[in-house]
Amino acid sequence: MKIAMLAPPWIEIPPPGYGGIEQVVALLAAELIERGNEITLFAAPGTRSRAEVLSPLESPHPDAIQFAVYEADHVASTFARMEQTEPPFDVVHDHCGFTAFAFADRIDTPLVHTLHGPFTDDTSAFYARHVHKASVVALSRYQADQAPDGLDVVAVIGNPIVVADFPFRDEKNDYLLWIGRLNDEKGPQRAIAAAHEADAPLVLAGPVQPGQEQFFEREVEPHIDGERVRYIGEVGDEKRDLYAGARALLMPIRWPEPFGLVMTEAMACGTPVIAFPEGSAPELVLDGETGFVVDDEHAMAEAVRRLDEIDPARCRSSAEERFDVAPVAEAYERAYEQTAQRARSPIR
Amino acid sequence: MKIAMLAPPWIEIPPPGYGGIEQVVALLAAELIERGNEITLFAAPGTRSRAEVLSPLESPHPDAIQFAVYEADHVASTFARMEQTEPPFDVVHDHCGFTAFAFADRIDTPLVHTLHGPFTDDTSAFYARHVHKASVVALSRYQADQAPDGLDVVAVIGNPIVVADFPFRDEKNDYLLWIGRLNDEKGPQRAIAAAHEADAPLVLAGPVQPGQEQFFEREVEPHIDGERVRYIGEVGDEKRDLYAGARALLMPIRWPEPFGLVMTEAMACGTPVIAFPEGSAPELVLDGETGFVVDDEHAMAEAVRRLDEIDPARCRSSAEERFDVAPVAEAYERAYEQTAQRARSPIR
Repeated sequence: MKIAMLAPPWIEIPPPGYGGIEQVVALLAAELIERGNEITLFAAPGTRSRAEVLSPLESPHPDAIQFAVYEADHVASTFARMEQTEPPFDVVHDHCGFTAFAFADRIDTPLVHTLHGPFTDDTSAFYARHVHKASVVALSRYQADQAPDGLDVVAVIGNPIVVADFPFRDEKNDYLLWIGRLNDEKGPQRAIAAAHEADAPLVLAGPVQPGQEQFFEREVEPHIDGERVRYIGEVGDEKRDLYAGARALLMPIRWPEPFGLVMTEAMACGTPVIAFPEGSAPELVLDGETGFVVDDEHAMAEAVRRLDEIDPARCRSSAEERFDVAPVAEAYERAYEQTAQRARSPIR
Repeated sequence: MKIAMLAPPWIEIPPPGYGGIEQVVALLAAELIERGNEITLFAAPGTRSRAEVLSPLESPHPDAIQFAVYEADHVASTFARMEQTEPPFDVVHDHCGFTAFAFADRIDTPLVHTLHGPFTDDTSAFYARHVHKASVVALSRYQADQAPDGLDVVAVIGNPIVVADFPFRDEKNDYLLWIGRLNDEKGPQRAIAAAHEADAPLVLAGPVQPGQEQFFEREVEPHIDGERVRYIGEVGDEKRDLYAGARALLMPIRWPEPFGLVMTEAMACGTPVIAFPEGSAPELVLDGETGFVVDDEHAMAEAVRRLDEIDPARCRSSAEERFDVAPVAEAYERAYEQTAQRARSPIR
């Protein structure tokens, strides 16, 4: 298929640092080309890809994320370039905020939009108002269930990873791993309680963000002893070895995360995940097969004692089947086809 | 004419506090209706106007100004409502950021956009890229001269005030007035130097904004003595009496302000303005007639000694002729007509 991939104008692809959406676009575009599709990537300047890259703006805008001047400029310029292209695109895959969705009824190319953000009162009202203009892909069934009435969810497709880039280890160390931004919703303090009850050492990794210093000092720091509870700060690519060596990844979250990428990364390394049943977690973790879905810290500690029931090889193979970029790209091809078909159909 | 007035979605009209654009829209819509036009005002919820008011969003968003989700939602919803209206609008007058301009080629109604912000590298690039889609009104000839090549500036029209709401005083007190945000560009420290050299008392009014505390402590505070230099903080409607009683308003600015509303307000009160030749100042101040345009603090002090050459009544009448809402609305009617004509013309 001939696909216009509309990335945000904020950060180049692949992202030099943080950039979750840009990482998804980078992997997906590369795999779709590998599979024989024709991709034109509309993205921030500095983008490198095997796809044809067009950058309507002069520079990326990492310090002005969400600002309408850049989003409107990027999207309106992209629409104009798309319309000058022959033969026309079969579909536009939109990863860029809200402007393309809001104006998708003013272009002829059918548009499918990945729901990169959670549904809030404001974003739900937005999608409800423009519900007829485009199709969406949800990152999880949980997210799809939150969608406002009438929103055309053509598929549930999680964010991809390249499983081969994650080291598989069958023999684990004795530590449990918690990774994320250290705040109440993500629950490092609950991981500490569970690890303590399970009498297992815990490694905490991730940044203390501005505004979270008091939470960290009160709930986390007193427990750090460098042995039973170690805090190693923010991690980059070394997180892959951390995952691979861990007995399990603990995910005692208390917020409805639409998609929990770290869970897929841990499983890719053959590491079970023990998660609370919030957001996408019960879908990503196959209970009893690639980890455990548990209700609280106490049940999490009990699950730690049952980790020998989980086969690391099965965690890896499940990640390959479900989260690797190849099945994700294949699922997107079906979503593109379906979006294009619905647009052609007289009954919408 | 039948006019769709597109206000921003951030703040209701009239604005409860700060809201320069909203104030312009409030005055202009009321006057255009007074003059027999039919106005539909697309604006934030809570808006009150004699115009028909339509509010696509659920609430104002004063804490998310410039955010694309709200601007795209507001503009796309407005376009849809406009297209359902019969008979059609003759013109849409856009005061709302950038999204309407960027997508103006996708509606049939011709659009005229008031340039409420200054031209920067980024906004100039924006307008240059979408130059053919709409007409613009510049707030000053200075601003019009900064416009990127090809931008269709149909008119130069300043922001309106209701001159009758400003008290006229012929007999002035002995103080000079400086009003604005206390920062380097606005120049309270230069006003202090000029007043000192002219041996005249000075009243400073305006807020010290976050980040400007050091500037204030270093450049302004040491000079405040409660007699020769008084600082009275931020002012509301009492600014009108402050203007009216002042011998002159000092505007020792060092930035190219596209339109200096306080100068028009001072003149409406019969108060001369002594300004540096930046941005719109040489247009707004008729040198030797409604004040003086001077190059530096020294020349500003000399101009203070010549204030008896300026007739307060002439300041007032000049404000009535040029800045009152009636001549401004009349100029907009011509701009609307011209915009509609150009849209009808086959040669654009």
